[in-house]
Amino acid sequence: MEFKVNSRALDKLLGNIIPAVPTRTPMPILENFLFDIKDGSMIISATDLEISLRSSINVPSDENKKMVIPARLLYDIIRSLEDTLITFQTDGNSKLQLSTENGVYNIAYTSAEDFPDIPTVSTEKEIAMNGIDLKKAIDQTSFAMSKEDMRPAMTGTLLEFSTDGLRFVTTDGHRLVKYLNKNFKSETEEQFIIPERAISVLTKLLGEADVKLYLSKTHISFQIGDLEFITRLIGEKYPAYNSVIPLENENKLFISRPDLNSAIKRMMLFSSASSKQVKFSITSDNLQVSAEDIDHGSNAIENIKCTYDGDPMDIGFNTAYVHDILSHIDDENIIFKLHSPTKACIIEPENVKENEELMLLLMPVRLNS
Amino acid sequence: MEFKVNSRALDKLLGNIIPAVPTRTPMPILENFLFDIKDGSMIISATDLEISLRSSINVPSDENKKMVIPARLLYDIIRSLEDTLITFQTDGNSKLQLSTENGVYNIAYTSAEDFPDIPTVSTEKEIAMNGIDLKKAIDQTSFAMSKEDMRPAMTGTLLEFSTDGLRFVTTDGHRLVKYLNKNFKSETEEQFIIPERAISVLTKLLGEADVKLYLSKTHISFQIGDLEFITRLIGEKYPAYNSVIPLENENKLFISRPDLNSAIKRMMLFSSASSKQVKFSITSDNLQVSAEDIDHGSNAIENIKCTYDGDPMDIGFNTAYVHDILSHIDDENIIFKLHSPTKACIIEPENVKENEELMLLLMPVRLNS
Repeated sequence: MEFKVNSRALDKLLGNIIPAVPTRTPMPILENFLFDIKDGSMIISATDLEISLRSSINVPSDENKKMVIPARLLYDIIRSLEDTLITFQTDGNSKLQLSTENGVYNIAYTSAEDFPDIPTVSTEKEIAMNGIDLKKAIDQTSFAMSKEDMRPAMTGTLLEFSTDGLRFVTTDGHRLVKYLNKNFKSETEEQFIIPERAISVLTKLLGEADVKLYLSKTHISFQIGDLEFITRLIGEKYPAYNSVIPLENENKLFISRPDLNSAIKRMMLFSSASSKQVKFSITSDNLQVSAEDIDHGSNAIENIKCTYDGDPMDIGFNTAYVHDILSHIDDENIIFKLHSPTKACIIEPENVKENEELMLLLMPVRLNS
Repeated sequence: MEFKVNSRALDKLLGNIIPAVPTRTPMPILENFLFDIKDGSMIISATDLEISLRSSINVPSDENKKMVIPARLLYDIIRSLEDTLITFQTDGNSKLQLSTENGVYNIAYTSAEDFPDIPTVSTEKEIAMNGIDLKKAIDQTSFAMSKEDMRPAMTGTLLEFSTDGLRFVTTDGHRLVKYLNKNFKSETEEQFIIPERAISVLTKLLGEADVKLYLSKTHISFQIGDLEFITRLIGEKYPAYNSVIPLENENKLFISRPDLNSAIKRMMLFSSASSKQVKFSITSDNLQVSAEDIDHGSNAIENIKCTYDGDPMDIGFNTAYVHDILSHIDDENIIFKLHSPTKACIIEPENVKENEELMLLLMPVRLNS
């Protein structure tokens, strides 16, 4: 078998596929790319059994061949080469030879027999989205996925198709994010849970290119330009998250997000490692935030202007969670909707785009008296 | 005690001092800054007992005071503040209060009694250098310091004052770098060995500012603008490095440094983890570099144009060491001076500045036959 391919084109392709190659795995074959050369096209894929990536490039090959090639080594060689033409040759046995004008590189390849099958998702049901819209939905919600395996559904991001639009929901039991894109209204309600690793790889692949989504009961596939990204879904029922969202939090606090976040960053330095707590003392025109580290005998108080329409209230939060939430809202001004120091607090941007809704929920913590 | 200081000025000062604060230490007091407020000036210092940093800022304080303040916490607070005026106040007991327009921060401080003394170096003997010259000398030599504690002298960088100029020498027994700056000729020969940690901190502090060096038998001090950097010296005799430098390596190989380094980067992918070896096969107009990883059944060969005036020779090197050396020469063209496959090889840039000399020595390795 022999064909030629441009180093830059192959570099780009392998760079897209390699995120699916696991760095540590008990199955060494997964540390390879699968090359499938067939009828003038070369399909390259990789999988860690949870996520898979696949793309192809046209190559004028004289024969069809499947082989399994060490992914990291091949990628490192290709990306270290200048813009040049690489000749791929096999002796039909176990040696792949790459050659350029100045160099010859021999790599051992293995048979494709043992490489796991990469799932295919029927293209019957297609949803077309703008890559930037999808990336935004993921970036605004992914931080609140649970890191704990106790409830597997919560370790992923919920995609919920509904008559209101396409909803992205994440929660770890302490906070919850719900993002709605109203451009994608659906006649039927359907839920899909995407695992954390798939979300973190997907967000790096997304850009301005349009994306097509294909869904099955067990998998979701994203077609991004020439690249196909497939992930298994978490086959669990997502918790009934609407039951924890308070319907009426009548006390509204309006505040500048950058001002509050700047103060919260300093409060993180003073919250003790055990309680991680920040206290909000709210009056009609002033929010006082304070934190104390008893172990180190240090404490901090800051005052930030605000507008608040309820009775004065003291309420405690996990400082890092407040920081997380404030860092994932774009708007300059935000609203805290409160009921009482023991009830869930709702945080929303003051302004959202016409086709969007964003709601963040944060559970308070009991204040050290 | 009470005084005011600008947050940005203090941020800059603390950022200069904090590199001397150890991240892990069995002596918790070293995790602090020493504040010495005296007669309108505030001297701030930190030390890990090997290196020390000290700088000062004018403050209109009403009294003199010495105190020891948690370094990381204070630095993190100050750099998170906007450009503002900070009031420092103590209750005379153990509480330092910082206040700004919007916030109040209380930090526990401790007495300065137990803080180790920071050595002072007599300013009798002064050498003035340009910061960029000093940085260049360090950057070209520091990579070859030994990581092994068996011979403590070799874990540092040798500063050698001589009638030829100021020499910087490093070696780990496999390679040696000798850099000479002829602008600093000295009437007497003197040697000082600076520890690795001091070198790595110093290079980050150096810039366009002029530097003054002060030397004693045990310490060296660098005055960089307002900042004083003091390090202990390694009190050992540096090995007689000149005895390993061959006087006459008659076979000269002229080659493009970027071309060779590009090939060497790929050879690193193929050198086996056990031998780490690259083979140079040299003829009059061609250098063939090759590497083999027997464990993984892979190998690579590249050809690079060169000019060579000796008999054809095969010689082996540690691939990573070749890469290190090539990455620390500025010139586009370099010369390998060779004698035989078992003798030390000299590598030099083809062109150096008039006031400089640079020589790198690399020991060959025995070729796998």
